[in-house]
Amino acid sequence: MSEIERKFVVSQLPEDVRGARAVRLRQGYLSVEPAEVRIRSRDDREHELTVKSIGALERVEVTLPLTPDQFEDLWPLARRSIDKIRTLHDVEGGTAEVDVYAGKLAGLVVVEVEFGSDADASRFTPPSWFGTEVTEDPRYRNAALAGAESPPT
Amino acid sequence: MSEIERKFVVSQLPEDVRGARAVRLRQGYLSVEPAEVRIRSRDDREHELTVKSIGALERVEVTLPLTPDQFEDLWPLARRSIDKIRTLHDVEGGTAEVDVYAGKLAGLVVVEVEFGSDADASRFTPPSWFGTEVTEDPRYRNAALAGAESPPT
Repeated sequence: MSEIERKFVVSQLPEDVRGARAVRLRQGYLSVEPAEVRIRSRDDREHELTVKSIGALERVEVTLPLTPDQFEDLWPLARRSIDKIRTLHDVEGGTAEVDVYAGKLAGLVVVEVEFGSDADASRFTPPSWFGTEVTEDPRYRNAALAGAESPPT
Repeated sequence: MSEIERKFVVSQLPEDVRGARAVRLRQGYLSVEPAEVRIRSRDDREHELTVKSIGALERVEVTLPLTPDQFEDLWPLARRSIDKIRTLHDVEGGTAEVDVYAGKLAGLVVVEVEFGSDADASRFTPPSWFGTEVTEDPRYRNAALAGAESPPT
């Protein structure tokens, strides 16, 4: 199931985005090869571990719940990780997810909008506070950002 | 918590060992680095996934239950694995765990006895059906056997 989405770097957040309900998302990789083993925390309330096959094997994905303590025990083992605050913001044509990165990616703010169809995606006109589009830029993929030492420039 | 145990290769299994209650044990590694991620199945009834830190980091170990289906989904992702049948057998001085390996290690039979103390371990006289002692032989460690393509010779 592939998502249709467009992604932009934000240079200046509007006031009402900054005030919106914020959720802290943390995601780390315990392994990327031969299987991807990822842990996730949503707002320090929901925690899970996912094992995914990579490469040409038959696709496998298994998700297991973690307790908060188990997540915190495992978090330091994740060499590649992302720590960000997400807020949702209504825009014309959809809902924007604004991710403000922390840690080694501090300073990076990315906004993403998902669409129901390719037509909706191309029809979308980004508001003025959206900056450069990075939808096709591989440096802004989740796994790439997790492994990066600083924001892409 | 280190175990005190002695390990031997078996050349000829006695009849009563072959008849004992057998348990199938499968163990596979989804990752060995930077964290060890291991899955285990005991007799196709109990299944679990364990994440362990390796190296000099503070020691972390988290074990999560798996359903039988989750285990079977993940099993093909384990590049290094062990599949063996274990039977227990009373011997003078303790209980022997006899492991008959299957798959790429077929032909290998190992017997292991655990002891409460170093004194008990050195006092132990192996029965005649125990073959060469391999307690100190690194090729017979679990992780080494899981990665081996054939029985050590």
